[in-house]
Amino acid sequence: MNYGFIVSYDGSRYEGWQRQTRTKDTIQGKLEDTLERITGAKGQVIGAGRTDAGVHALGQYANVHLQEEYDLKMLQDAWNRALPDDISIHGLAIRDERFHSRFSAVEKHYRYCIRVGAEKNVFRRRYVWQLGEALDVEAMRRGAAFLTGTHDFTSFCGNRHFKKSAVRSISDISLSLSGGELIIDYRGSGFLQNMIRIITGTLVEIGEGKKKAEQMPAILEAKDRSEAGFTAPPQGLVLVDVVY
Amino acid sequence: MNYGFIVSYDGSRYEGWQRQTRTKDTIQGKLEDTLERITGAKGQVIGAGRTDAGVHALGQYANVHLQEEYDLKMLQDAWNRALPDDISIHGLAIRDERFHSRFSAVEKHYRYCIRVGAEKNVFRRRYVWQLGEALDVEAMRRGAAFLTGTHDFTSFCGNRHFKKSAVRSISDISLSLSGGELIIDYRGSGFLQNMIRIITGTLVEIGEGKKKAEQMPAILEAKDRSEAGFTAPPQGLVLVDVVY
Repeated sequence: MNYGFIVSYDGSRYEGWQRQTRTKDTIQGKLEDTLERITGAKGQVIGAGRTDAGVHALGQYANVHLQEEYDLKMLQDAWNRALPDDISIHGLAIRDERFHSRFSAVEKHYRYCIRVGAEKNVFRRRYVWQLGEALDVEAMRRGAAFLTGTHDFTSFCGNRHFKKSAVRSISDISLSLSGGELIIDYRGSGFLQNMIRIITGTLVEIGEGKKKAEQMPAILEAKDRSEAGFTAPPQGLVLVDVVY
Repeated sequence: MNYGFIVSYDGSRYEGWQRQTRTKDTIQGKLEDTLERITGAKGQVIGAGRTDAGVHALGQYANVHLQEEYDLKMLQDAWNRALPDDISIHGLAIRDERFHSRFSAVEKHYRYCIRVGAEKNVFRRRYVWQLGEALDVEAMRRGAAFLTGTHDFTSFCGNRHFKKSAVRSISDISLSLSGGELIIDYRGSGFLQNMIRIITGTLVEIGEGKKKAEQMPAILEAKDRSEAGFTAPPQGLVLVDVVY
C-alpha cells in the first residue's frame, strides 16, 4: 500500500529533510524511525521537497510504501503520538501505487518571511530573517518579475557540483507587507538546492540598493553563482504546500 | 529619572517575571543584569504583572529609576542588543517620578489560547494549551459571565497563604474561536496569583461538561480553592497589554 500524508514541522533543530548517516536529527529520519517503532516495518519516506537544515514546513507532502493495510486513523494517531512535538502529520490516505511525492508534484509553494520592522518580534524569531531595516519593495518586485517563467537557474543554485539541467519554471513570485514583515511567496514546478534562499538574498540586495533590479537578466545569463546575491538564512523559509 | 518601557518575551525557558536568588532565568533578572552591564547602574525593574514561569508577554510594561539621563534611542538599542533574543523592549520613555508600573496600572489584558482542533500546530506548540478536543463554548460563556464584576476570588487564588484582600474586578471575559484555537481574553484591574489559569481550567471543565456553568456563583461563594477547577498550563497565557 502507498500511504500519502501532509507533514508540518518546525525545522529549527533539524539537519533538514533528508536522512543522513551522521545524525538522527532529520525529518525523514524521525518519520522513518517512529514508523518502524510503531509498525515494525521499515519504509522509505519520500518527501515532495528536500528542505534544508533549519527550513520549516506547513504542508510538506510525503508518501511511504508499506506491505500491510492499516486503519488510517489508528496509524495516523499512533504515528503522531510517537513523533516529537515539532513534527506533525495529517490527512493520511491511500494513494495510487505509482504516486511519488516528488515526481508527481505539479507545483510547490514556498514562503520566505523577512522582518523589516525595527522592533524584534520575540514570538516570530525562529520563523523570520530578522533584518530590521526597510527595503525598496517596488524595486524587489521589478527584480522578481525577471525570474518568472522558464529559465536556467544555474546562477541561483547552491550546489556547485550540480551536473543535471538547472532549467526550472517559476509561475509566480509575489511580495506583500504585513505586520512588520515582508512576505515573499514563491510558486513553481521545482526549485534547485538553496535556490529560493539565493533568490531571496539577491532580492534583498536589490531592496537595499546594492544591486539594481535591471541587473537580474544579466545575472541569469551569466550562469555563475557568484553573480547572484548571498544565501538568505534558512529560518525564514517555509514549504507552505504542494499541488498534485 | 524614571524610565518606562514595553517589554515582550517568550517565557518558555524562564522561571517567570520575578527575580529569584536560586536562578538567573527570570525576566526581571535578565533585564536588570543586562542594564547593569551596559550602564554600570544597578536598578530595580518593576513590572506591571508578575507573570508565572512559562507565561509570555506581548506588551508587559515596566519601569526603572536610574540616576543618569541617557539618550533614549541609544539606551533602548544597546539594551536590546544585550538582551537574549527571546526578550525585547520598545517604546522607552521618561515617565513621571511617581509612576509605578504595577500600582499605576488601570487595566491589564491577558489572553489564554487553547488548541481545540484535533490537528497539532507545530508552530504554536509553545504558545497554546494543546487540548485537541471540542468544547461547549456557549456553556463556557455562561460560566464566564458570572465572574465579571467585583468579587472575592479566593477560590481562584493559587497562593494558599495569601492573607490580603482577594477582591478583584474583572471588566470582561470574551471567548472566540479562530484557526482551531479557542481564545479567551481577560480584562481587569488586577489578578491574583494563577487566577487566570485557574479560571481557564474551571471554564474548560465546564466546556467538557464536567462542571455546570451555573455552579460558578457557588464556587465564588465557597472561597475555597478546591471548589474551582484545575490550573491550566502556563504556556497558553500571554500578557497582551497594560492600560494606564
